[in-house]
Amino acid sequence: MQTLFIKTPVTVEAHAAVVGKKEGEGPLRDCFDLVAEDIFFGENTFEKAESKFVSQAINLTLKKAGLKPDAIDLLFGGDLLNQCIGTSYGIRSFEIPFLGLYGACSTMAESLALASVTLSCGQISRAIAVTSSHYYSAERQYRFPIEYGGQRPPTAQWTVSGSGAVLLKNGGRGVRVTSVTIGKMLDFGITDANNMGPAMAPAFVDTLKTHLKDTHRKVSDYDLILSGDLGSFGMEMARELAKDEGIFLGENYADCGCLMFDLKRQDVHAGGSGCGCSATVFCGAILPELESGKYRRVLLISTGALMSPTAIQQGESICGIAHAVCFEGE
Amino acid sequence: MQTLFIKTPVTVEAHAAVVGKKEGEGPLRDCFDLVAEDIFFGENTFEKAESKFVSQAINLTLKKAGLKPDAIDLLFGGDLLNQCIGTSYGIRSFEIPFLGLYGACSTMAESLALASVTLSCGQISRAIAVTSSHYYSAERQYRFPIEYGGQRPPTAQWTVSGSGAVLLKNGGRGVRVTSVTIGKMLDFGITDANNMGPAMAPAFVDTLKTHLKDTHRKVSDYDLILSGDLGSFGMEMARELAKDEGIFLGENYADCGCLMFDLKRQDVHAGGSGCGCSATVFCGAILPELESGKYRRVLLISTGALMSPTAIQQGESICGIAHAVCFEGE
Repeated sequence: MQTLFIKTPVTVEAHAAVVGKKEGEGPLRDCFDLVAEDIFFGENTFEKAESKFVSQAINLTLKKAGLKPDAIDLLFGGDLLNQCIGTSYGIRSFEIPFLGLYGACSTMAESLALASVTLSCGQISRAIAVTSSHYYSAERQYRFPIEYGGQRPPTAQWTVSGSGAVLLKNGGRGVRVTSVTIGKMLDFGITDANNMGPAMAPAFVDTLKTHLKDTHRKVSDYDLILSGDLGSFGMEMARELAKDEGIFLGENYADCGCLMFDLKRQDVHAGGSGCGCSATVFCGAILPELESGKYRRVLLISTGALMSPTAIQQGESICGIAHAVCFEGE
Repeated sequence: MQTLFIKTPVTVEAHAAVVGKKEGEGPLRDCFDLVAEDIFFGENTFEKAESKFVSQAINLTLKKAGLKPDAIDLLFGGDLLNQCIGTSYGIRSFEIPFLGLYGACSTMAESLALASVTLSCGQISRAIAVTSSHYYSAERQYRFPIEYGGQRPPTAQWTVSGSGAVLLKNGGRGVRVTSVTIGKMLDFGITDANNMGPAMAPAFVDTLKTHLKDTHRKVSDYDLILSGDLGSFGMEMARELAKDEGIFLGENYADCGCLMFDLKRQDVHAGGSGCGCSATVFCGAILPELESGKYRRVLLISTGALMSPTAIQQGESICGIAHAVCFEGE
C-alpha cells in the first residue's frame, strides 16, 4: 500500500507564501503574504535571495501562529539548488531540527507527507514543511544563465521565485491532513530539459490512480485535484493519460503552474514550475479556501522531474515522481 | 524533544555493503559483500558507477531477505551528487515508492531515522534505507577533478566509493531501532572545503548530547558510539568539544571514516568520508556485530557538512548536521 492514512488529527496551524515580483503580478497577486520588490530581494546573489524567500516564509508562518522557532520540533524542507542551499541557508538562523529532502518540484508534497506521518506518531507537537525556488538561480544551474538570452521553446516552464511554508500541528482543529500517497519514480525516456511536463505527467497519473484505489474514492470525491507544476502541455498529457486509465479529470482538476501566471499575458510559455510553485500556490491560494470552507477536500499532488544536467550530458533520461497529500476541512 | 522513540519493534531484516577497490584493500576488506574491480565498476562514467553501487547494494539486500522489489513499501535514500542522481538512477529499475533525502554525509542516519519512524506507524511492512558516494564523482563536483592532480592538505578526507543498504521491517526479531535523534544545523564559520571534520564535529557533539539527555543515558550505556565521518582531525575535535560538555568519549567511541581505511598505509590523509562511508562501515562491519551479540547497543551518528561550491564562492560558510539512530540487539 503506497497510501498512509493519518489517523490522529494533524492540522494546519499557519502558513505563508512569499513570492517574487513577476508572481506578484499574476492572477494570484492578492493571495500572497509578501511580494519581493525585485529578483534580488535585497540580497546580492540569486541564491541568497532564494534563501531569503525561505526565511521570510518561515518568519511569517511563525508570526501568524504567535510562536518562536523553539516551539517547532522538526523542519522538513528542500529546494532545487545543488546541495539544497536555498533551504539550508534560509533556515540556518532558526536552529530547528532539520530533515533535508530532495524530490525536485515534488518536494512540497514530500515535506508535507513526511511531516504529517511523523506528527501522527504522537511524539512531537509541531513541524514545518517548506520549499523554495528562484527563476534566476534555477535557470543558470539547470539550463543557461538568463543573461545569455537563450530562446525558450513553447514547452519551457517558468521557475517560480518564492517559498511557501506550512506549520502542521499534532491535534487541534481546522484543516487536516488525512492521507498521503508516496509515488514511484517513472522514466518515460524524456531527455529535453525544456520539456518537463511530459516527464512528470505519467508520475502524476500513477500516483493519482494509486491514491484513488487505496482510498476507494473517485475524482468527484474531491473539490479540487491539484497537480504541482505540469504546465499547460503536461496538464493536457495528464488528462489523456488519466483517461487511458479510466480516470476522467474534469472541472475540479487544476495545475499550480497554470494557476500562478497568466499564460497569455506574462510570457511564461507553458506555465510555472519549481519547488516554490506548488508551495506558494497551495499556501497562498488553496489553503485559505479550505479554511473558509469553500473546499472540503483537496488533493495536492506535487510533481517532480529528477532532472540533472550531468546525467543528461551522459545520455540519461529524466525520471518523474509525484507524491499526493489529501487535505480536508472541518 | 529531538528524540523520537520507536516503540513498536522495527527490526533489521537484511543489509548489504558494496565498495570500491581501495575500500576493499582496507582494514574492513573482509566485511563487505562485494568489492568492485575498479573505479568504473563496469560503467563508463563515475556517476553511473555510483548508481551501480546503489543498485547492487539493494539487489544483495533483497537477495539475502529472499524478497523481490515489490515487497518493499518505501525506499528512503540520497547521496552527494547534484540532484541525488547516484540514488535516483540506481533505484530506477526497482520501481519502489521513493522518498529522496539530502543531508550530505548524514544521509544514512537520516534515511534510517525516517524509515524507522514511518514503519513504527504500523501501516507499512518494509522499508529500505540506502546511500552512496564515489570518490571520483564527488571530488570533481565539490573540489577538483582527480585528473587535475591537486595537492590534498592533511585535513582532506577521502570520499568512500560504495553504497550500503538496510532493509527494515515492521515487527520481527533481531536487531532493533529503538530511538532516533534529529539534529540541528550548526554553523561554526568553516569555509575550507578540504576541512570537513571541524565543520561537522560541533553538530556531532550537539546531537550526542541531546540524545543522551533525551534518553537519560550516559556514554557507557553504549557498546559503541560511532560518528559518521569526522576523520582523524574531526574525531579529536569531537572529543575535545564533548569534554567541554562533560561528555567523556573513551574506548567505545569510533569514527567510520577512521575505521574504513588504514590512515598510515592508504594515503587517505584524515580518513574516509561521504554518504557511503557510514553506510558501508555500518552495514558491513557493525550490524553483523550487533547480530552476533558482540554489541548490545550501538549509536550511529552520521555527520554531514552541507558544503556547496556555489555557496562557498559566494562567501558562505559550511554548516554541519548530525542525526543519531540507536540500534539494540535482542
